[in-house]
This record gives sequence, structure tokens and C-alpha cells, in this order.
Amino acid sequence: MAIRPYEERDWEGIWTIFRSIAAAGETYVYDRNISEERGREIWLGRSNDAVIIAGEAGVVVGTAKMGANFAGPGSHVAKASFMVSPQHEGQGIGRALAERVLGLATERGFSAMQFNAVVETNFRAVALWQQLGFTIVGTVPAAFAHPRHGDVGLHVMHKSLNTSRNGAAEEGG
Amino acid sequence: MAIRPYEERDWEGIWTIFRSIAAAGETYVYDRNISEERGREIWLGRSNDAVIIAGEAGVVVGTAKMGANFAGPGSHVAKASFMVSPQHEGQGIGRALAERVLGLATERGFSAMQFNAVVETNFRAVALWQQLGFTIVGTVPAAFAHPRHGDVGLHVMHKSLNTSRNGAAEEGG
Repeated sequence: MAIRPYEERDWEGIWTIFRSIAAAGETYVYDRNISEERGREIWLGRSNDAVIIAGEAGVVVGTAKMGANFAGPGSHVAKASFMVSPQHEGQGIGRALAERVLGLATERGFSAMQFNAVVETNFRAVALWQQLGFTIVGTVPAAFAHPRHGDVGLHVMHKSLNTSRNGAAEEGG
Repeated sequence: MAIRPYEERDWEGIWTIFRSIAAAGETYVYDRNISEERGREIWLGRSNDAVIIAGEAGVVVGTAKMGANFAGPGSHVAKASFMVSPQHEGQGIGRALAERVLGLATERGFSAMQFNAVVETNFRAVALWQQLGFTIVGTVPAAFAHPRHGDVGLHVMHKSLNTSRNGAAEEGG
């Protein structure tokens, strides 16, 4: 498996994964019948975000994006989103993407990474983030309408990064 | 003081407040030198959001916006933002705007309201939200670079609303 920056030819593969994950409605706060145009805007529309893919035998099996969570006085904290092909779950692809994303965020001088909306019944993801050092800052109750479990909570998760924000700024980051 | 829906003639007054609050850099995760175009996009750009203003003697002294915090399975939770003219703080304008916004969110069938980024040193706001029934779900540490206090936390705050989401849906809400 290769992890590398997004290229335009990857979009079709990303969209196949994106569409199926949105349609399942179990892990993301996207419209279940989201348009490709809107999906592209979400995944590729922020020009300062890093977008990477996991590829296997020329096929996109996972993708992630990372950028500032907020602007201005909140711009030193990164956020990230991850999608792995449902057919390729449990193979370490999410972990490999997350490790790369954490490395990119550190290189860019972000002082921390935050996830704003981790569905509490997405146990595999929650466990992975905790293994990678994220903690649950809090859980917004009943904030996610799960198609099988009803209204479940959304975790806000956070991990500090080993960066010197001021030092990074001096280097132009 | 009158609370009423936004009209196009109000933008100039909103922008005066918006610009000064962004420039102070103490309460919002906006660029401190944000452009008017971007400010307008943030405050007025989501067509389904409700935008209201507080007016006194024909002058805009405060404004608020309210809409869905997330899409799809997260669209039953509202979010809202508030701005009061620094020259008019402590006069109950924020409370009056908040009460109206909570009423609008209830009318529209939202099951709860969430604030994603309340600066923990914004004591007046935190106290007001708590008086209105919001609780602090969690605090993201050091997520806000305050110009005087250094890195301070951002509260995620939440309040359930007395709506029956399913009932509201049956009425078309």
C-alpha cells in the first residue's frame, strides 16, 4: 500500500468511497444523498488543506484531508477527516493515513489536532484515535441520527502535537 | 430595542460590529483582518440560516445567526453566533438576541443548540449561556490564541430544546 498526495486522477476513486460512506449515514455528518459537486467541494475545496490517498494496485482504497480547524486565533489547531473503502476495512489503512496526517500536521507547525464530530458508535475509529493518543474532550449528546442506533453522541477528540508553534512560525510555517 | 429579521440595509451596521470584534481577536475564530467579502459570506452566506439584528434608534447594535450545525445525520442540532457592539455591552442585547434565536430554533424543530467554539475567557458570554441552560460539554485546551491571555481553551456548549423532532417533521419542519 502506498500513501501519497492526491492527484486529479484520484477523484473518481475517492468519490466511490465518499458516496458509499455518505449513503450509509453511519459515520459522517454529510447528506446521505450528497451530490458529487458538494462532495468534491468538501474534500478538495479548501486550497490550503493537504489531501492524501492510500493506493493499492492502482486503486484508491482510502483518503484523508488535513487543514486548519478554524481561522485567525484558532488556526494553530488542525482538523482531519478520513475515509477507507468499506471493502478494505480492518487492514490498517486508516492507521497508515492517520500517521501520515499527524506527520504532515506536525511538519506544518500545528500545535494540536482536533476532530469535531466522531460518531460514538464508530468504535473502530474511536479506538484507533485513542491508540494514536487522542482523548475525548467531550461528547455532544444525541447529536447524530444513526440509521440503526437512533440518536447517538458525537465526540470531540483532541491530541497535542510535538511542535513549537512559535519556532515553526519563525521558519515561515 | 427591537429584535427583527435582517434586511439588506442592515449589512453596513453589522459589518462595523463584525470588523471591530474580529480585529480585537478575543472572542471569534476569524482572521483579525478579515475582508468584508469573507465576513459577509460567513454571516449571510448560508441561505437556510436565520439572521436577526437588534436595533436601537435605527442603528444596528447587535446581530445573531442560527442554522444547522452539520448536514445529514447531524442536521437536527442548531448552532448560533452572536455579536454585540462593543459600545453596547452589558445592556442585555446578547440575552435578547439569544432568547429570540432559541425561539427560532425551537420553532424550526431543532432538538438542541450547540456552540462549537466559546472562548473560555469570554466570561460574560459563558455566564450568559449557562444562565440560559447551556452546559459545557468539554473544553478543547489551548485552542484559541488570545492576544492578552495567551493560548486559552474553547468550550463546546450544548442545550437541549423542547421540541419533538419527529412531531416537528410531521408538520413539515
